[in-house]
Order: sequence, then structure tokens, then C-alpha cells
Amino acid sequence: MLVDKFILPECKVYMCGHSLGPSLKTTSDAVCSTLQDFASYGVSSWNKSGWIDLSYALGAKIAALVGAKFDEVIVCDSTVLNLFKALKVAMSLQNGRNIILTTDDNFPADLYIAQGISEVKYIKSNEIYKNIDETVAVLMLTHVNYRDSSVLDMKTINEYAHKYGVLTVWDLSHSIGIVPVDLEESSTDFAVGCTYKYLSGGPGSPAFIYANRMYHEHMQSPIQGWIGHNQPFSFEKEYTSFGVRKFMSGTPAILSMKALEAALEIFDKEVIVKSYSIAKEYSNILIKSLKSHGIEVYAPQNRGGHVAFMHKHGYAFSRALIDAGFICDYRAPDLIRLCVNPLYISLRNIESCIEQIQFIMERSLYLKPEYNQMQKVT
Amino acid sequence: MLVDKFILPECKVYMCGHSLGPSLKTTSDAVCSTLQDFASYGVSSWNKSGWIDLSYALGAKIAALVGAKFDEVIVCDSTVLNLFKALKVAMSLQNGRNIILTTDDNFPADLYIAQGISEVKYIKSNEIYKNIDETVAVLMLTHVNYRDSSVLDMKTINEYAHKYGVLTVWDLSHSIGIVPVDLEESSTDFAVGCTYKYLSGGPGSPAFIYANRMYHEHMQSPIQGWIGHNQPFSFEKEYTSFGVRKFMSGTPAILSMKALEAALEIFDKEVIVKSYSIAKEYSNILIKSLKSHGIEVYAPQNRGGHVAFMHKHGYAFSRALIDAGFICDYRAPDLIRLCVNPLYISLRNIESCIEQIQFIMERSLYLKPEYNQMQKVT
Repeated sequence: MLVDKFILPECKVYMCGHSLGPSLKTTSDAVCSTLQDFASYGVSSWNKSGWIDLSYALGAKIAALVGAKFDEVIVCDSTVLNLFKALKVAMSLQNGRNIILTTDDNFPADLYIAQGISEVKYIKSNEIYKNIDETVAVLMLTHVNYRDSSVLDMKTINEYAHKYGVLTVWDLSHSIGIVPVDLEESSTDFAVGCTYKYLSGGPGSPAFIYANRMYHEHMQSPIQGWIGHNQPFSFEKEYTSFGVRKFMSGTPAILSMKALEAALEIFDKEVIVKSYSIAKEYSNILIKSLKSHGIEVYAPQNRGGHVAFMHKHGYAFSRALIDAGFICDYRAPDLIRLCVNPLYISLRNIESCIEQIQFIMERSLYLKPEYNQMQKVT
Repeated sequence: MLVDKFILPECKVYMCGHSLGPSLKTTSDAVCSTLQDFASYGVSSWNKSGWIDLSYALGAKIAALVGAKFDEVIVCDSTVLNLFKALKVAMSLQNGRNIILTTDDNFPADLYIAQGISEVKYIKSNEIYKNIDETVAVLMLTHVNYRDSSVLDMKTINEYAHKYGVLTVWDLSHSIGIVPVDLEESSTDFAVGCTYKYLSGGPGSPAFIYANRMYHEHMQSPIQGWIGHNQPFSFEKEYTSFGVRKFMSGTPAILSMKALEAALEIFDKEVIVKSYSIAKEYSNILIKSLKSHGIEVYAPQNRGGHVAFMHKHGYAFSRALIDAGFICDYRAPDLIRLCVNPLYISLRNIESCIEQIQFIMERSLYLKPEYNQMQKVT
């Protein structure tokens, strides 16, 4: 049972894996043993413990999960930084075009990065095809929407974009670990993603970046990091790099990398396919029940690993749920998100959660003043 | 005794703090307790354990070490990424000028970043003043040279640069924690630095970035990270940010941040001033002795926390020294570097090291084949 591999908060149902996945039982040992290596061998651990190869080793593991070749993915930096790099590179390959096309319901973090790079054109999610033309440089999309959990069809969109010479950059942050993805089969150009959500890599675990091999030769990273140099310890004056290592920047955060390495042990393609299938069942049950209570709920046909519903006292509602032992999260202005990852959420948990939601509504618990005090992180 | 705060590799003399400082005894507990928070509270720890404020809290601690105001420094990302951000911002404030002036013996990692941003003009370290003029946008310098350990005069250089409207970006990676720095007193514009060398933050611990308050209002980061947004959890469509938080990018690597937090506990300005004074004494002894053995050694008048000497079998020489218990490092093509940080190096250690160097030379131990097998990280 994979659930036995996790440490779950006592007396709590952890429905927040779409934000920060729970710890694996092996995480602590992996990090502590790295701290031991650091204490015992100091700088020698870079060779002795293979720290120098971690970005590539973890990249290869992620590649196997998303249908990429082992040398098309590396693990480094944050999703924000990797998206910056991927967008800059994709834009640089599109001489004469300067529009980044994206959906207006895309994750704001992704929009901020795009806004800092070039002209951004916002469209509705259901109007992607009709807005793709030769003026567009890059189509930047999120595979699973952070609000409504809807899943876009990567393969069909990529093929359509390529007809017009448009390059695609996908954010897989809410997909990786729960929704099957095949980057090769879907002819994806570039992708990035987070590892602390469904992959349970730990708080601030490093992100990944994917570049299709066809771009490796001609792409040039905007951030020429020494550790991505062909010979990082030759200290040559000129910068040369190859392949996806062009996206390496500075020294990787080894402790955070090691927590992720431990978490990745439990994942393979089969685990993800199975999780996705059960998550869909759970979502159906949850959505049906919420609707029957008159709650406004997002119910797109293709869904990721969470279910979101709306309530005008959204923040206070989420606090009341958390207080009752159901760890969920809130997204401004009115959304409550519940993760249904079957790796650690059971059908019984879903049923209890529904009962609790009903209870909160019946007694209007969201009106309690203590639930209306906004915390820093929501 | 501060030496009791460190864990030092058994039977070894750790003369490599200029590359990766040794672990503090408290590091492991700090990280393990964070892993415990993660396991027990999951996503709730962002509020409960104050993770969301770590970049600013650690920034304020570093600010106090380098004579900056508490809100002029944040801790995030790597030195490479922070240098990229600082250079891009400084260049954007210098309309019409496009030259980054730097020394040809600057750390190659810094040169790579600059090369990726604009036109770079390389000059000799002793010809800085005569190359500063109105054509230069930014003067990018390293305070302590990674090879010869020479220290530049920040105050005089900054003042001279400002006469010509040139902005300065300093890399303090080899200074912070060992060489006193005062950013306010020296009128520094921007600075970045590493925390895993003399500050002992652990492998890949996050770097810091400093921006003088006078630029906070008008600067705009090239990487608009969501976590630097004025209201990161409002999920507004437009990006707004203020102050040094403009340099925040993605979710910080919490485990690595916590290791650094533990290490910073032992540092204050007084510790650094005292360390520097003893390090200079140790350097004098080491340099005098190496010279007396006919070894070619860098001996600039103002030195940082390491001493470097040359040998035509440099790499093999460093391996022979390490094998004998003196952990040092090698920099291509012929340099051996020895850290003399008095926080954990004693006068007796220095004397033993000299004896060992003499022994290696007398027996030409650097000719042994096993020492000539190059490892990945040097």
C-alpha cells in the first residue's frame, strides 16, 4: 500500500497535495544522511556522494514519468525561473514574432513571468485554436488549471500550434505525479513543472525543465550558469554548454534535491495512471455530492487531481474545514480546493469531507470571526 | 570557543571553507526539525513555522553583517541567478550605455553571466580606475579574488565610478563571513554573494542579493516572481512589487534556507572582524613559509580568507595534500587554495600543513598515478 509510505498529519485528512504534497517516510532519512555526508566529508561529498550529478539523475527520473528522453529534462531552480528560461529561449527561436499567447485563467505566477518578457495576449481557454496564427511566437499554457482543474489536450493543441510555426511552453505543475503526460507523443516543445505538489518533494523542492531534443543545438540560455558549462571546473573564459544542461544556473540546493530524490522513489508511469483513474472516480463522487448541496462547483469533463468549489465566504469556509481536520486551501477571491490524490486520500475521507462541508453550511460556521482573520499564506 | 560549534571531518584539517564551509553542530537539528514540521503540519507550516518570511528574515541577518539596512538584502536563489538579476537591473537603469566593465581575472561564473547580458570589457585588476569613463554602464567586480585572494577597495572604487555615473555590482562570495564589508559606508549600488563558503550554510544554500535603497523605487526585476508580488496570494493579474522583494522569484528551498539560518546564528560583525585579523596573521605565516620552500605563492597586500600557491602538478599536489588529511582545493590550471579561517583552523593546523607540503615536495608525491586521475569536481 503506497499510503503507508507517507507521513500524514495526525487526525487530519490531507487534501492539499495540489499545493504541498505530504512527506514520505523516507524523506527525513534521505536528508539526514546527506547532512551526515556534509558533516563528515565536507566539500569531498560533491564527488563522493554524487551531488554534482543530481540535477541530471533526477531529471532522468522525471523524464521517465513524462514520456521524455533521459537527457531532455533537468531538475534545478524554481518553476518561476525555469519558465523564465524556457520562455526566453522559445522567444529567441522565433525571430520577428513577439506575442506570447496564453489563457486569461492561467496561473498568475506564469502570467507575471510572461509580462516581464514580451507582449502577452490573453484569450479564453475555449478559444485557443482560433487565436493561433503566424503572429504568435509562443503559446504558454498550463496543462491542469489551478482553479477549475480542467485539463487541456496537449497533443491536439501542440499539433495545431506547429502548423502555424508557434512553439509551445507547458506548465505541468498541477499534472506531474497525478495526470499522465507524454511529452514525446504530444510533440511538446518546452515544459516546466513543480515537484512539491503531487510529487511530494518537500517545501520549495526544485522544479524541472524540459526541452525537446530538436532545440538542444540551437537554443541559448539567457542565464549562462557556470555549472551548466561543458567543463565547469576548467574555468575557461568563454561559455560553452550543450543540451538541456544549458538551463543549469547556479549550485543546486542539495538538501532540497535529496528530499525530492527520496520522494521520486515511489513514482513510475503505472502509479500515475492508476492514481489518475481513481482520482477521477473520487472527483465524480465529490462533485455530485457538492452539487446536490447546492454548491457551485467546477466540473470540467477532463479533470486533474483536485476539485474546486465556490463560496462567497470562501476563505472562512476553508478555515472552518481545516479546523475540522480537512486540510484544503483557498484561492482568492472565492475558491476552495480539495485534493483527491488516492495515494493518501481514501473514499472514506471523501465521504467524511462531504459530511463536514454539509455541517459547516448548516451552521454557517464560516461566519465565525476567527475564520475571517486572514493568514499570510492561503 | 566557536570551533566547538562546528563538526569537522575526523582526522582531517578542513582548509576548504572558501569552497564549502564545514557543518555547524546545529545544522542537522534545524533541518530535521523543519522536516518534522513538514511531516506534521504539511502546507500549514508556511504560516505556522514562518517559512513565508524566511527570505526576508535571513536577508535582515545578512544585512547586519555587511552594513546594509534590513530591507536592502534578501536571501533567495543562487549567486548566479542573483548576479543575473542585479546586472540586468543595473543595466536597465543606465539607458544608452551598454558596457559591463570587469577584470579579466574575475570569477569565470560571473563573466559567463555578464557575457549573456551585454558587451563585456575586460581589464587588468590594477587598471580599474583608468578604464572608468562615461561609456561604462556597470562595473562588475569581485571583492575578494577567487584565485589570488586579493581584496579590492570597494569604497574608493565606488566613489570613483559614481563620478562617471557608473553603477557598481559587487560579488561578495569570497568575502562574506571573513572579510569586513560595509555596503552603506562604501556607497555600494548592488551586491550578491554566496552563503555556503565562509558562512557554512551547507551545500547549495541560497545566495543573497543587495540593492541600495536609492534604487528600490525605480528598479524593475527581469524575472517577475509571484512570491515577490505585493500580495502574492491575491492572485491579481498585474504584477506589482516593491523594494528588494522585486528580486524574489519562485518558492524558496526551505530545507536549504533552514540550514543557513542555523549557521547564521554564530555570525555577527565582531566575529568577522576578529576572524579577519587572525586570518591575516595565519596567511602571513603560511606565505612566508611557502616562499621559503621556493614555492610560487600569491601574496597581495590585502588578502581574503585563503592563500593560493602554484605548482605545475597542481591537481595531483592538491590530491596528495587531501590524502594526507589537509582538505584543500584545486583551481585550473595550476593553483592550490588553502583556507585559513580561524573559526576552525588553528596555528598548529597551519604548521602541520606546511610540514606536509614540504614532505610532498621532497618525495614528489604528486607524481603518483592515483593523484593524477581527475575527479569531476575539483
